[in-house]
Amino acid sequence: MGNKLIEPRKIQGFWELTPKEEALFENMLSSLRAVFENNCFLPLDTPVAEFSEVLLAKSGGDVDKEIYRFTKGHADICLRYDLTVPLARFVAGNYNLLDFPFKRYQIGKVYRGERPQKGRFREFYQCDADIIGEELPLTYDAECIYLYKPCFKALNLDVEVEISNRKLLSGLFAGLNYSGDTADLFTIVDKFDKLSREDFIKELLGKGISETDLDTVMRFVSTKGGIEEVKNWTNLVPNAEFYHGIRELEALDSRLRALGMENYHYNLSIVRGHNYYTGTVFECYIKGKRNLGAVGGGGRYDNLCKNFMDKNLQGVGMSIGITRLFDILKSENLLSAEENVGVKLGIVTFEETLKEGLTLMAKLRESGIKADLINETKSFKAKMKEANKRNIPFLLVLGEDEVKSEKYTLKDMQTGSQVACTFEELVKSLS
Amino acid sequence: MGNKLIEPRKIQGFWELTPKEEALFENMLSSLRAVFENNCFLPLDTPVAEFSEVLLAKSGGDVDKEIYRFTKGHADICLRYDLTVPLARFVAGNYNLLDFPFKRYQIGKVYRGERPQKGRFREFYQCDADIIGEELPLTYDAECIYLYKPCFKALNLDVEVEISNRKLLSGLFAGLNYSGDTADLFTIVDKFDKLSREDFIKELLGKGISETDLDTVMRFVSTKGGIEEVKNWTNLVPNAEFYHGIRELEALDSRLRALGMENYHYNLSIVRGHNYYTGTVFECYIKGKRNLGAVGGGGRYDNLCKNFMDKNLQGVGMSIGITRLFDILKSENLLSAEENVGVKLGIVTFEETLKEGLTLMAKLRESGIKADLINETKSFKAKMKEANKRNIPFLLVLGEDEVKSEKYTLKDMQTGSQVACTFEELVKSLS
Repeated sequence: MGNKLIEPRKIQGFWELTPKEEALFENMLSSLRAVFENNCFLPLDTPVAEFSEVLLAKSGGDVDKEIYRFTKGHADICLRYDLTVPLARFVAGNYNLLDFPFKRYQIGKVYRGERPQKGRFREFYQCDADIIGEELPLTYDAECIYLYKPCFKALNLDVEVEISNRKLLSGLFAGLNYSGDTADLFTIVDKFDKLSREDFIKELLGKGISETDLDTVMRFVSTKGGIEEVKNWTNLVPNAEFYHGIRELEALDSRLRALGMENYHYNLSIVRGHNYYTGTVFECYIKGKRNLGAVGGGGRYDNLCKNFMDKNLQGVGMSIGITRLFDILKSENLLSAEENVGVKLGIVTFEETLKEGLTLMAKLRESGIKADLINETKSFKAKMKEANKRNIPFLLVLGEDEVKSEKYTLKDMQTGSQVACTFEELVKSLS
Repeated sequence: MGNKLIEPRKIQGFWELTPKEEALFENMLSSLRAVFENNCFLPLDTPVAEFSEVLLAKSGGDVDKEIYRFTKGHADICLRYDLTVPLARFVAGNYNLLDFPFKRYQIGKVYRGERPQKGRFREFYQCDADIIGEELPLTYDAECIYLYKPCFKALNLDVEVEISNRKLLSGLFAGLNYSGDTADLFTIVDKFDKLSREDFIKELLGKGISETDLDTVMRFVSTKGGIEEVKNWTNLVPNAEFYHGIRELEALDSRLRALGMENYHYNLSIVRGHNYYTGTVFECYIKGKRNLGAVGGGGRYDNLCKNFMDKNLQGVGMSIGITRLFDILKSENLLSAEENVGVKLGIVTFEETLKEGLTLMAKLRESGIKADLINETKSFKAKMKEANKRNIPFLLVLGEDEVKSEKYTLKDMQTGSQVACTFEELVKSLS
């Protein structure tokens, strides 16, 4: 053809599934959307690109390196790297139109130009639910944590949530004989799960934690259990911030119980990576699969819109790492079978029954059955081969006899068994 | 705060709805997804960005100006401007993994850097369903046209499809005393609807159509009606391509009738803007609202992957301009009421009934009722005000008596009427 061919390359690290996997992923997203809406969250869909001035308003240098940034005409533009800054821009820009507390969920793609590696993507989905308001009691923190229950139920998964409150750790550090930057200590505690005990201790000592304080810190970050285990700390750290944190967890706990939340416990080593969290923090795991890592998390933050308006708005949010979760379910073979997506019944026609085959196909689809004609241009043998290759579970060969009698032979391609049935019986057995 | 505020600007022309509108738009998308999957199309979700080499493989200079293009490291990248080129890249790159005919739908954002104006967006959604295969009989063209019926039914709209075949116009032009480029004539015919009769004739004459041929062309492009009106032309244009086009429309028509398709007719002025169409072409309108313009269209094309592989794959596809459609429904007040989205029941608690209010809220949500607590930190009066402002249709004030008796008073905020009910009655009347 004299046509120079171009290699059909996709950019590495950009998320793309096969159509059958995508059907399962879409099912996952619609289940989550239904849960969020049932829990009174409204959807938001912000642009994938924003002005750089807006997106980079608060970020440090780290984000800059990872970001997709470009100019178009005079506009300096970035692809969004999370859904939180766009939420802040939206709330500030539409402040007078919104009802508060404003509960929104957003499922959308975000972009990070880092080197792609296993489990890390450059384009991937985030799924966030946040509640924004001028004064948000702990009820809303409880609501965000509770939300994991119906979300995971809708995905046919069991969830386990681990909860802490950043005020505890700040209070604890404030009470220590420590002169360094406590932000460094938060960063170390965030790695408690990933480091060996020895390396963790080495890092703490390296940042100047004294041998005397080390024991307290180690006992504190190792604390896991119910609210009683948390309350045991009440009088051990004489610090107002610490005490405030304990009281917040107590208030949260009674609300979680009122909501009927199960499958949660406290883990005082939870801090979350983002420094904008100010109180409640939590992470979630697939129950019994903690080794696969957190598949969601969130917490309480203050002053969401501070870069855009002179109004102090609080927020609390939860998120599910759906790209990562799907990736895990796929590699652990926990996805519902792919066979359930796609064509259910293949219809094989002959030249003289093509029209009747189309009518039957349309009627079946209108009855909710995924029926599809096998390409009419092929020979009978090739049609059977196509049905086999495509793993279509049921087949119907439509001859003139079938058209006349309105009795169809339904063939189960797995077992090879055949049953004769009317249209109604066809619909019933395929539903 | 000493904090320089940044104006929370969104890039002009990028599509963003209010959360209540977005809830309606999401409903529209899920209805369409369900229809596509029921009709045996599988979903595809390709990256928003692709290598420029891939995306611009076949485009002319026009696209270049409109495109968002940038570099990241060594990569030359574009935001996609349609979903067809990514489909071609996907099919060529995954050729051995796919079953043919490959039926996929995709709903996704596309980007065009043109000057924004009413009804034109820089970031907007496209919604495409295509069938790709090595040999596709007209049955697949019929299937794509038929698809408008369940799609529009799912959106509670009536559709009207207008159909033609590009072979007719090519055959007609080939038979004329015309020496110019027929592509120019296609471009003029594409404007038949938009130009006045006088301007249309002026353009044809300007391109060198003779006065003798003008009458034939005018009668041809004015032809509208059933298949009989099309067949009337059979012997009037002695050209093999023209005759081929007529036979294709006849074959298409019998298949459309077999599928039970209604609400379609032939309009021989339909050519579609894209030059890649080679046979069947069609456009769709909201029935009775043709003046609002086409809200979808599609047709038959050849050689989808020619830039990426040495294999001739045919395709036929339909699309719905969902951003435009939603925009029209909004401005024509044809959207289902926004009141149906968001909170259905507001629960007003007191300090002593907060926990019971949370339990009730969770139980109601688990029964499918969108119940939400009114922010507990407000005074009773402020809570009532909030419920009113947010247009919550029903309200339940939970005092200690209600908790004890498990009898609730449900207040209709529209009529002011109140009824006493048990939990079950509450669920029933709010469902």
